[in-house]
Amino acid sequence: MTTRMAREIAEQPETVRRTLAALTERRGDIRSLAAGRRRVLFAARGSSDNAAVYGRYLLETHAGVPGSLASPSVATHYRSRLDLTDTLVVCVSQSGATEEIVETQAWARECGAATIAVANVAGSPLVTEADLALVTEAGPEVAVPATKTYLAQLVAMAVLGTALAPDPASLDPELARVAGEVERLLATPVGDAVAALRDASYAVVSGRGLMMGTALETALKLEETCLRPVRGYSYADLRHGPISVVTEGMTALLVAAADGPLLAPLVELAGDLAARGATVVGIGGDASFAGACAVHVAGPDLPEAVAPLGAIVPAQLVVEALARELGLDPDAPRALAKVTRTDPHS
Amino acid sequence: MTTRMAREIAEQPETVRRTLAALTERRGDIRSLAAGRRRVLFAARGSSDNAAVYGRYLLETHAGVPGSLASPSVATHYRSRLDLTDTLVVCVSQSGATEEIVETQAWARECGAATIAVANVAGSPLVTEADLALVTEAGPEVAVPATKTYLAQLVAMAVLGTALAPDPASLDPELARVAGEVERLLATPVGDAVAALRDASYAVVSGRGLMMGTALETALKLEETCLRPVRGYSYADLRHGPISVVTEGMTALLVAAADGPLLAPLVELAGDLAARGATVVGIGGDASFAGACAVHVAGPDLPEAVAPLGAIVPAQLVVEALARELGLDPDAPRALAKVTRTDPHS
Repeated sequence: MTTRMAREIAEQPETVRRTLAALTERRGDIRSLAAGRRRVLFAARGSSDNAAVYGRYLLETHAGVPGSLASPSVATHYRSRLDLTDTLVVCVSQSGATEEIVETQAWARECGAATIAVANVAGSPLVTEADLALVTEAGPEVAVPATKTYLAQLVAMAVLGTALAPDPASLDPELARVAGEVERLLATPVGDAVAALRDASYAVVSGRGLMMGTALETALKLEETCLRPVRGYSYADLRHGPISVVTEGMTALLVAAADGPLLAPLVELAGDLAARGATVVGIGGDASFAGACAVHVAGPDLPEAVAPLGAIVPAQLVVEALARELGLDPDAPRALAKVTRTDPHS
Repeated sequence: MTTRMAREIAEQPETVRRTLAALTERRGDIRSLAAGRRRVLFAARGSSDNAAVYGRYLLETHAGVPGSLASPSVATHYRSRLDLTDTLVVCVSQSGATEEIVETQAWARECGAATIAVANVAGSPLVTEADLALVTEAGPEVAVPATKTYLAQLVAMAVLGTALAPDPASLDPELARVAGEVERLLATPVGDAVAALRDASYAVVSGRGLMMGTALETALKLEETCLRPVRGYSYADLRHGPISVVTEGMTALLVAAADGPLLAPLVELAGDLAARGATVVGIGGDASFAGACAVHVAGPDLPEAVAPLGAIVPAQLVVEALARELGLDPDAPRALAKVTRTDPHS
């Protein structure tokens, strides 16, 4: 039986094509709205937050624009007054109805920010109340774990990050190849990776820089969908201390781009984790990265700046297959609802 | 036998008094350096990063100044050029010698930022190269887990956060009470909390807002010192998904201030986690919070804005006692060195 999650994963080439077509033409509007603003502040939660992590790195590394992630409680609970007249605030929510993000967007406007909403539902509160809305074209998502809506958010982040770069079209040839790469990656064999995670006493996921959001999203999906306590770390944070918990019986899942300044250190990390007894599963990277991993899963043939748009696909396949292998229903993990409330009764 | 970690924990009343005395008089210098700057960007790693999380919340909730946390790889690996002429960059490192933070500070200056170093070692590279140095007065720390140097960093964050507030002296009466509260909390009984963590199949730590850094630091210490895979979450992030992994046999450690807008939701979270079968251990909060926890450890009698300066003490006592109970050496956890390098061979 094919799960809904599997079907939604398979719809992603179409999601990428439609979303890219719909949003690329908004670059001029994004630039106009951002005129005179010096920085971008993202507000999001969960998978949307992981998409924002990519958006922030792309802005800082590709567009040269400082980005940061908001702490929603400053808006929703402390109701602080900050001067955001120099800031473009980007709120990301699949449903466009996550209450704390809608509230954070309203707060940002009161603080003087220009606002962009990234959501998959036209007519949602986040979309109707923003200065500019980037509505992704993933179509309705029924399975609880976000897959195609997450990838659609990454496309929106890529459009945003390139819109604010000196040459907004400079990554267009690479972006045009994403849908094809996603299509190709749908056939990635993941059996060995699933087995390594199934048999693990504990798992960590690591990556860094532009791939950091991919590591966090993979960890979150393993945790939510496979009910495994899993931690996503920047490899720098992992090395700084928590690496001491890495021992025999643990599986470390590393996500890497095929190029970029963080590939070589990640190859080295793979070797160090293996030396501590961990089973290292790698997604992406190059031949030397594959050689340093006990189990390797192919990643996209895309440059680092857009690699997250492909690399999440094999990770999704691993999560979906592992959930089934564990006898769980990937479509409806226990205790999760599609529209989340972080303060359910307040 | 008393461990060095225990002795350094016990030195903290003196650490607080000395650091507060040394840094409070720098508020004028901080204000002068910050003049014309619109925001604060923190760069740090590990425990220092957790101190910076508190600094960021205090700035946003108390001083009304936007804060954010840097991604060091943007400086050290991508070498991006960002316009930071509107930014005060605060680099935090116990040793003042953590290479990537020293490098990030140099990058920030090249990008036009004003720089403040927070370090415990006068004459360290971070201190000598900053526009302004806040040298904490913890004295040499020998045990690998940061305790008194972390609390000294929190004091520095409190001085910074109040220096940039409209009335820099408004929290002075509360800050003057911190050393006494730390002294009092050194005698906190933690045996029941240690037992609950010792017997746990898995542990999560949660808090939010001004206490978020305390939750992250407690999780990091449990992980590094007790070699337990532990995850620190904002309670909002926990509710958004990972709460699905909370089951029987798990221990949830919650840290709360005795007042503030996040106390009531945290009491509610304690009840929800207990209903899922977790053993809930609470540190701090009020009587209703204590009532919602299976095990309760007293926290400081301090308002939320400075509560983290007291609340870390019982958490440190729990970590130190748990390590000994597990037969580990709290002074020298495996695989950790005092000055960390996140890219050891590059």
